[in-house]
Amino acid sequence: MPSYKAPVGEVLFLLHDVFDISRYASLPGFADATPDVVEAILNEAAKLCEQTLQPLNQTGDRAGCVRDKNGDVRTPEGFKSAYKAFIDGGWVGLAADPEFGGQGLPYTLAAIVNEFASSANMSLAMYPGLSQGLLAALLTHGSQAQKELYAPKLISGAWSGTMNLTEPHCGTDLGLLKTRAVPNADGSYALFGQKIFISAGEHDLTENIIHLVLARIEGAPAGVKGISLFIAPKFLIGPDGSIGARNKLACGSIEHKMGIHGNSTCVMNYDGATAWLVGEPHRGLNAMFVMMNEARLGVALQGLAQSEVAYQNAAAYAKERLQGRSMAGPKFPEKPADPIIVHPDVRRNLLEIRAFNEAARALVLWTSLRSDVAHRSGDAAALEGAADTLGLLTPVLKGVLTDMGFENTVKAQQVLGGHGYIAEWGMEQFVRDARIAMIYEGANGIQALDLVGRKLAKDGGRAIIAFFAEIKAFIKDNEADAEMAPYLSGLKQGVDHLEQATMWFMQNARAKPENAGAGSYDYMRLFGLVALGFMWAQIARAALAKRAGAEDQADVMNAKLLTGKFFMDHMMPETGAHLARITAGAHDLMALPAEAF
Amino acid sequence: MPSYKAPVGEVLFLLHDVFDISRYASLPGFADATPDVVEAILNEAAKLCEQTLQPLNQTGDRAGCVRDKNGDVRTPEGFKSAYKAFIDGGWVGLAADPEFGGQGLPYTLAAIVNEFASSANMSLAMYPGLSQGLLAALLTHGSQAQKELYAPKLISGAWSGTMNLTEPHCGTDLGLLKTRAVPNADGSYALFGQKIFISAGEHDLTENIIHLVLARIEGAPAGVKGISLFIAPKFLIGPDGSIGARNKLACGSIEHKMGIHGNSTCVMNYDGATAWLVGEPHRGLNAMFVMMNEARLGVALQGLAQSEVAYQNAAAYAKERLQGRSMAGPKFPEKPADPIIVHPDVRRNLLEIRAFNEAARALVLWTSLRSDVAHRSGDAAALEGAADTLGLLTPVLKGVLTDMGFENTVKAQQVLGGHGYIAEWGMEQFVRDARIAMIYEGANGIQALDLVGRKLAKDGGRAIIAFFAEIKAFIKDNEADAEMAPYLSGLKQGVDHLEQATMWFMQNARAKPENAGAGSYDYMRLFGLVALGFMWAQIARAALAKRAGAEDQADVMNAKLLTGKFFMDHMMPETGAHLARITAGAHDLMALPAEAF
Repeated sequence: MPSYKAPVGEVLFLLHDVFDISRYASLPGFADATPDVVEAILNEAAKLCEQTLQPLNQTGDRAGCVRDKNGDVRTPEGFKSAYKAFIDGGWVGLAADPEFGGQGLPYTLAAIVNEFASSANMSLAMYPGLSQGLLAALLTHGSQAQKELYAPKLISGAWSGTMNLTEPHCGTDLGLLKTRAVPNADGSYALFGQKIFISAGEHDLTENIIHLVLARIEGAPAGVKGISLFIAPKFLIGPDGSIGARNKLACGSIEHKMGIHGNSTCVMNYDGATAWLVGEPHRGLNAMFVMMNEARLGVALQGLAQSEVAYQNAAAYAKERLQGRSMAGPKFPEKPADPIIVHPDVRRNLLEIRAFNEAARALVLWTSLRSDVAHRSGDAAALEGAADTLGLLTPVLKGVLTDMGFENTVKAQQVLGGHGYIAEWGMEQFVRDARIAMIYEGANGIQALDLVGRKLAKDGGRAIIAFFAEIKAFIKDNEADAEMAPYLSGLKQGVDHLEQATMWFMQNARAKPENAGAGSYDYMRLFGLVALGFMWAQIARAALAKRAGAEDQADVMNAKLLTGKFFMDHMMPETGAHLARITAGAHDLMALPAEAF
Repeated sequence: MPSYKAPVGEVLFLLHDVFDISRYASLPGFADATPDVVEAILNEAAKLCEQTLQPLNQTGDRAGCVRDKNGDVRTPEGFKSAYKAFIDGGWVGLAADPEFGGQGLPYTLAAIVNEFASSANMSLAMYPGLSQGLLAALLTHGSQAQKELYAPKLISGAWSGTMNLTEPHCGTDLGLLKTRAVPNADGSYALFGQKIFISAGEHDLTENIIHLVLARIEGAPAGVKGISLFIAPKFLIGPDGSIGARNKLACGSIEHKMGIHGNSTCVMNYDGATAWLVGEPHRGLNAMFVMMNEARLGVALQGLAQSEVAYQNAAAYAKERLQGRSMAGPKFPEKPADPIIVHPDVRRNLLEIRAFNEAARALVLWTSLRSDVAHRSGDAAALEGAADTLGLLTPVLKGVLTDMGFENTVKAQQVLGGHGYIAEWGMEQFVRDARIAMIYEGANGIQALDLVGRKLAKDGGRAIIAFFAEIKAFIKDNEADAEMAPYLSGLKQGVDHLEQATMWFMQNARAKPENAGAGSYDYMRLFGLVALGFMWAQIARAALAKRAGAEDQADVMNAKLLTGKFFMDHMMPETGAHLARITAGAHDLMALPAEAF
């Protein structure tokens, strides 16, 4: 049976020692997040995730969600009370707007709680998680009346939310979508159409489910410029907020899928469902991007979360399982064999995962802090800079953290040998669950295109220029420190490769856009390695300082310094291969005629 | 619903144009394998796999194997008649010794049929597949009486075989095994113990199941030098070959696992089962390696097989699914969108898979031909050279073909976006099924250690020296040909990296063996890329020749030349990153104390 322990100490080190969140005290909500409060919150979240959510992860996977003939969906046993514990703790509204009942704490803290919950039980964590994207879109684009009607219930968790984008014939290319919105006399609309892959589309955890739905108002222009966003509750709501009649929408079936069996992935049928426009007509795509960006960071966290819990279980196994002897001579001659942690290749697997996990967590927090600045700062320049970084990094986090997170669950599974393939041990579930994160909220190939095709060139490349400048300033500030040399040299090499790749696109993608498309995936992965490397350099600096200041921290800080060194020596060299593939260009990819595939 | 078409034309091109099997006509069995016979055999195998095995792949996955309370196991519906069709076609004994009823055809042909069958239905193909390893051990180490008793029935497929190595507390480290063999008065033994992860351990397909079991004769030395090999049939066999009483062995349970649900993975309990020694006492490990090596090539094939069928289904989807527009302008303006095959990143995924598949198939055939020479040649020097290559390449094929094969199923799944995650489409089954091949018959980390720790240094490095010499001779023979330049330059670079890595081990692993362990996995993957690159160079040469000779072959040969070029430009650069990691050495891996993980 797998287990999970939330990495609270790790997070506190990142928040205080690496990123010094006290610097953000002037932002709304941050003053309340004193070190004591933060630690108390994290410990509470850890307790809930470890004791309530995690024990339902395997049983939820086995039981799955069950739809009855009326279209009602029953979640796995125990999910209902666990969800109640989650909302009773106020976790849905941790960072939400106090105007609507939220606690207004930093988004950064909510991101951490999201990681813990997703490690403990990804399927269960998705139910409240999906409300976040909906809330973001609603609070940005909804009317005041809509906000007042829906936000408090979503923030309390009494209701949950969904996002209805995909249709059978279109996912990425939403311009093709067919769901129709017919105006009613009272200003509402009637929705007709079918949506697929709707996570948490129907379930028994909340008294109402609020669907955000992309649809085309009759007579609207074709393509993406004719798409509008609608809100359609499962049960209609009286002006006083009371639950009314069942709306004309229903779950038509549940998908049988590879993993996240505890979350109901629904086909949703809209048969004249009453819905209300959110924002302006034909401007639904803008509103959708608000919720998508929010959701993409959430999905990035799932990649890290599965990698973390898989690591913990693989490391525990490697320290217990006796098999073979150390190449350097028996380490435990009194035992029948040494634990497999003595074998270099077992350590390689574990270190690759760990060197990712620690830096990925740092990257999530670093980006989340930018998100907090971008959404809360009163300083226009700071806000713009933070929004730039957030926009640039969002596809990188989504694409790279879910790719590497999945790969890491596979490595962790491998550490257990045959036992890794057996359901009882839980490792194969991490692999199956992690796999979806590379696909939904924009498949990772789409993230790469968003990065290269949109984010790089935006505002004359302002975001990427600032990103390079920030890393270079860090290198310059620290290059006098001999102890920092192992971390800076790898980072320098990576940045150099990323700059060369960026330059290559500038020179070769204008005349032939397929050169950008062909190299986009490698560019995203290269970017991810550089971003993770930058995190390791910052972690190393903080660890060196902390080790110098406190002898009792030496072991923990040395472990970080060694893991960071491993990252630079063993993982950063991949940037050269990415660069080679990018500069190989599109010809090899495009020359083969379609029918030859 | 996924589909499968066996790549018969592809195989014929490899056999005749690339490797010219007519050169081997003097080997036993090869004279019978005329081009017409080979083509007829492949077409028959293709028909069986496409029409009989493949339609049961998804249904078998869903139904799984069911054990009743008596320990009997029911395979999925249809498996019994499909197995019967397989054995009625004589496929189990295709390459087996005619003395015991086999057809004596080249092993190379059997390997091809194995690929087809594993693509069509990996779980089902494993039942006859497992008999092969047992047969190899029996024919090498068994007594004449044992051969006569068991081999004909195994070769006809009337009985099937299993390999019983793993126990709950030991897999890789067989020196720890506890199963006891107590001598009976009549020269037989009574086996006591529990074996786990026994593929096809119990089922309803054959009238008897023959178990090869590693056990320790009472009083035997500890460790691997006290292990003996036994044969224990499910039903005892009369001297006339008749089926007798039930032996004291049974399936205790079926494992619930990630994939290959159609194959019964059993816990086998030996409660005094009557068994007979195979070969000499305490020399079981030798006999085991015979069956393991055989089985490892079979598992390598599974990696290729899943990659191939996943490619076919992803490519078909990419040519049909309409989504978005080509970056170079709409290709099908009359359609609502272009098929996704126009997008460079979709092509990247497909080409990475295909560039592997074609070269991996070549590598399997190239190695299988060496196996045929090693087992059948009358020329001692040729036999030695072939056995060297076979020994050197076996861990590379097992490790790299299953690693990359699995990675390819993930890429193919990604091409389908959300549909890739849904069971109905079948892609996620390929991922789940392919995953086991990286684990069983020696986890891939063990393959890497076998390569670096045993195969490299064997006989003064004779095998690796010959391997380098063969590639260099090829390069030299072809470097005057300008059309070969794109293929030779990538290969040269790869070989250079592999030589540097080999040299680095020679200089750094003697004093510190952990340097070899730390770099072993990267070395195996680097070796695999070079071997695949060598295959691409040979394919390119054959394709250039064929294109020059026959205009109607131009399209097919151009596709090969382009795919090979893609391999050199996009996949070969990885060798540099592998070399960097190898030469980074063991320090970063070993410095962290075990308790810090």
